[in-house]
Amino acid sequence: MDTPAAAPKVTFDVHPSRYRHWTLSVEGEVARLVMKVQPFGGQSSELELKSNSYDLSVDIELADAVQRLRFEHPQVKVCLITSGHEKIFCAGANIYMLASSTHPFKVNFCKYTNETRLAIEDASQHSGLKFLAACNGATAGGGYELALACDEIVLTDDGSSTVSLPEVPLLGVLPGTGGLTRVVDKRKVRRDLADAFSTLAEGVKGKRAVEWGLVDAVVPRSKFADTVAQRARELAARSPALDRGPGIQLDAIQPKIDGAAFQYRHVSLKIDEKTRTAELTVRAPAGEVPKTAAEALAKGADGYAIRMARELDDALLRLRFDHETVGLVIVRTEGDRAISHAVGELLSGPEKDSWILRETRLNLARTLRRLDVTARSFFAVVDEKSCFSGPLFELLVACDRSYLLDAGGVRLWPGALSGGALPGWNGLSRLQTRFLAQPEQAQKVLAAAKEGPLEAASANKLGLATVFADDIDFEEELRVAVEERASLSPDALTGMEQNYRFAGPETLATKIFGRLSAWQNWIFIRPNATGERGALTMYGKPERPQFDYRRT
Amino acid sequence: MDTPAAAPKVTFDVHPSRYRHWTLSVEGEVARLVMKVQPFGGQSSELELKSNSYDLSVDIELADAVQRLRFEHPQVKVCLITSGHEKIFCAGANIYMLASSTHPFKVNFCKYTNETRLAIEDASQHSGLKFLAACNGATAGGGYELALACDEIVLTDDGSSTVSLPEVPLLGVLPGTGGLTRVVDKRKVRRDLADAFSTLAEGVKGKRAVEWGLVDAVVPRSKFADTVAQRARELAARSPALDRGPGIQLDAIQPKIDGAAFQYRHVSLKIDEKTRTAELTVRAPAGEVPKTAAEALAKGADGYAIRMARELDDALLRLRFDHETVGLVIVRTEGDRAISHAVGELLSGPEKDSWILRETRLNLARTLRRLDVTARSFFAVVDEKSCFSGPLFELLVACDRSYLLDAGGVRLWPGALSGGALPGWNGLSRLQTRFLAQPEQAQKVLAAAKEGPLEAASANKLGLATVFADDIDFEEELRVAVEERASLSPDALTGMEQNYRFAGPETLATKIFGRLSAWQNWIFIRPNATGERGALTMYGKPERPQFDYRRT
Repeated sequence: MDTPAAAPKVTFDVHPSRYRHWTLSVEGEVARLVMKVQPFGGQSSELELKSNSYDLSVDIELADAVQRLRFEHPQVKVCLITSGHEKIFCAGANIYMLASSTHPFKVNFCKYTNETRLAIEDASQHSGLKFLAACNGATAGGGYELALACDEIVLTDDGSSTVSLPEVPLLGVLPGTGGLTRVVDKRKVRRDLADAFSTLAEGVKGKRAVEWGLVDAVVPRSKFADTVAQRARELAARSPALDRGPGIQLDAIQPKIDGAAFQYRHVSLKIDEKTRTAELTVRAPAGEVPKTAAEALAKGADGYAIRMARELDDALLRLRFDHETVGLVIVRTEGDRAISHAVGELLSGPEKDSWILRETRLNLARTLRRLDVTARSFFAVVDEKSCFSGPLFELLVACDRSYLLDAGGVRLWPGALSGGALPGWNGLSRLQTRFLAQPEQAQKVLAAAKEGPLEAASANKLGLATVFADDIDFEEELRVAVEERASLSPDALTGMEQNYRFAGPETLATKIFGRLSAWQNWIFIRPNATGERGALTMYGKPERPQFDYRRT
Repeated sequence: MDTPAAAPKVTFDVHPSRYRHWTLSVEGEVARLVMKVQPFGGQSSELELKSNSYDLSVDIELADAVQRLRFEHPQVKVCLITSGHEKIFCAGANIYMLASSTHPFKVNFCKYTNETRLAIEDASQHSGLKFLAACNGATAGGGYELALACDEIVLTDDGSSTVSLPEVPLLGVLPGTGGLTRVVDKRKVRRDLADAFSTLAEGVKGKRAVEWGLVDAVVPRSKFADTVAQRARELAARSPALDRGPGIQLDAIQPKIDGAAFQYRHVSLKIDEKTRTAELTVRAPAGEVPKTAAEALAKGADGYAIRMARELDDALLRLRFDHETVGLVIVRTEGDRAISHAVGELLSGPEKDSWILRETRLNLARTLRRLDVTARSFFAVVDEKSCFSGPLFELLVACDRSYLLDAGGVRLWPGALSGGALPGWNGLSRLQTRFLAQPEQAQKVLAAAKEGPLEAASANKLGLATVFADDIDFEEELRVAVEERASLSPDALTGMEQNYRFAGPETLATKIFGRLSAWQNWIFIRPNATGERGALTMYGKPERPQFDYRRT
């Protein structure tokens, strides 16, 4: 088994001008994202990232590029993803990196890459930013999974380049970035062909790749560039008519770090390694907030809702990668409820289709969904100082539990934003997921809050409190609950939360995070994969792996 | 890690007259199923099954009882499940049994108990056989999960009896029999309350259990029997008007066992431990088959379709429990295609709503779904001798791949039965699942087969062959495929198959088998559960478990 050594520290603060592995260029409606992984430019300078194989540092740049396209280049309708190598598109996640990683890092790495792929699909679905995978060479494993996240896949027809998912036959693990799910559920490849494909280490090429539905077209090398450019133009032409603005620049987040405390402008994260808990505080805006889309645009990346979501995102990622033993996050909010409410109302108000408000909202939704698949427990605490209002109300319903103080001056203020603008992975609003048994209840909550903030007692009556206790009991109940939670098996909690957080309808995403990832996690710790003679361990060595052939 | 010791042998040949743990009694429309687990009457005579805790032998009797109710007592509209103990309903799966089992046995045990719970729901949904859990005492873990599978849950209100899912807080594993899924997806308990409930070792009782939606009613001990009887009558009154017959007796299956070969009347299973493969052959009926429901009823349990499905079910279970290293099953069929076709046409013909045909069909559907979650690869082989016709055609589309010989005399004959009467776990017919990308294709196949058996070439053109090869290549291609398959990581294959076999819509069942079980399997092999100081290992010992607190 792996040792409890800390995973290497990761930075999410990247910028196109400093990308090591990707080049992002924009020309009118079309962007090009070219992957040329710097072999010794990854997270570990000792690990060679051959054949456009990637590690986390490569995926962080990809996620950054997709994010910047949406905010900095909203006029772009198509992003072409291709490789800067001659004969290889992408070989997927680096095997040696995976084989030498701890189990928690492997799982978190896959989770992050999955979020990036789903962000690509989110951009396609909601921002009219279509993606075209121009697979100009071998497209293997995670490379093919990246292509699967795109709207179209074009493969070069050079007699040798294939698409493949060689994980099962070569590594004894699953394609970990949604490949299986997208093959049968997105591209709807016949399941028997999918089975044959996924056990064929060498992959499938040419006409057969098209016939099986694995790619949309194969094109001879001589016509590849032209055809891809032509298809990109066609994709752009089909992109829906959305408001697209001039773009804003995303600045760096850079929290002040003081020991185990991270101070952002609107967010604080305090880690207590000893009790294995963290306190996450999100503050409402301090002063005036924009009243129109134009004012929001003028604020640029300084705008509260953009900045707050990006800070929260950064905090969640630091928690995941750098503070593995913190199992419980106490979520608090602070500030002026009326101001926070106003932020939410603008985001879902009459101007909601303006590009800046749309992208701000979509970004907030993505960040909240990042929380939904963060393998930590979240308890929201609501007291007199709290500001669960507007966008911050959504934090309450994202948490596993809410502790509501029964006292005057304690108020909750859900707004229009909670009516569906910030869907969870299951496609429902978090209020809908909460009230699966009484679908009308979500509307009741929102209707009641239209009159103004909800007093604690009525919020409790409306079903917004897991625990509702008065001054005398509140702190004690919370203290006991926190201690108990932090004492339970971290694995059982993760499993439980992943079954409870997306009740209701299933989507591609819930299948990926709920089903595929769970199987992958299981396989990752089986000796057949990561044992001394497991397939992942033995990869690249002359000996064959040895399996315990009991089928389970 | 567990050693590759064989799991104890299991018998599925049980009968109410020989039940050790349950008593089944029938009075008119109401059946009573009373659980009183014989403490030393389980699979292992050394393990005491205290407090109505169960092992596989207990669940086999439960599954048998549900099955017999449908065939032997089709007039029963409500089955009351209760306990023969004073103060305890059921304590769930026996912890010491679980803790001392191998990983494959644990997983197979949970799979079987899940299938039993889903069979209860299948009877409720399709056979008008409603279930009422009369929880006359503590209802914990798997005990509560059994209640969750019922249509109604009534709990005694005696000041102490609770319902609980103490697995997470006490054992560091998940409730393994669908509990989490049914709490939020079937009973639609609010997810924050579900979270609180599932970490509360002592459970929830009385009014709160009703308020949270965990049970339908709590009733004082003095009124318990009357209230339950009254609710049973009401449930019976609401049971839909379905044809209900006089019942038939189910005889024992008892195959001839010759070394590693199992000979049934219509099924043969030959195990080859050396190559880790098995050959499963299903034969068409030998002679005349019934043309009407009355003739089918007259045949009783000797009727082909009932007997064949029960034999296939038995063979699959023997494979799962007694031949763990067999990873690949070659599925063959033999016999007269016209006769087999006639069987299918009767089952889905004008008399299909008669109780005997309905139950025969539902039973076949359950058996095929047993195959769908059997963690083995299945390859169908179609040659001149084959009879993939009528009910046996469904085997072809249940398999992971089909190898179709390109030769004269090779024919496939899908019939009306494949048009939706035998849904997979996702609720779709297997043809629909196969052709997710072209929903019209399933109809095309059936329309073509209305004219008569499909010649090999047209079956291939219709998309029914994974591999279509002529005499010269067929055996060689199959041989290579079999060898390859048997050489791959058994874990990766299981994960892959569980992601491919139920593409498309999600149901309670796909969530249970796809998501919940996968998380449970992961947790089962984590040191935090089953390591030397894991919670499952330490259960009942004076020391506390020790956790590696990294959240994953």
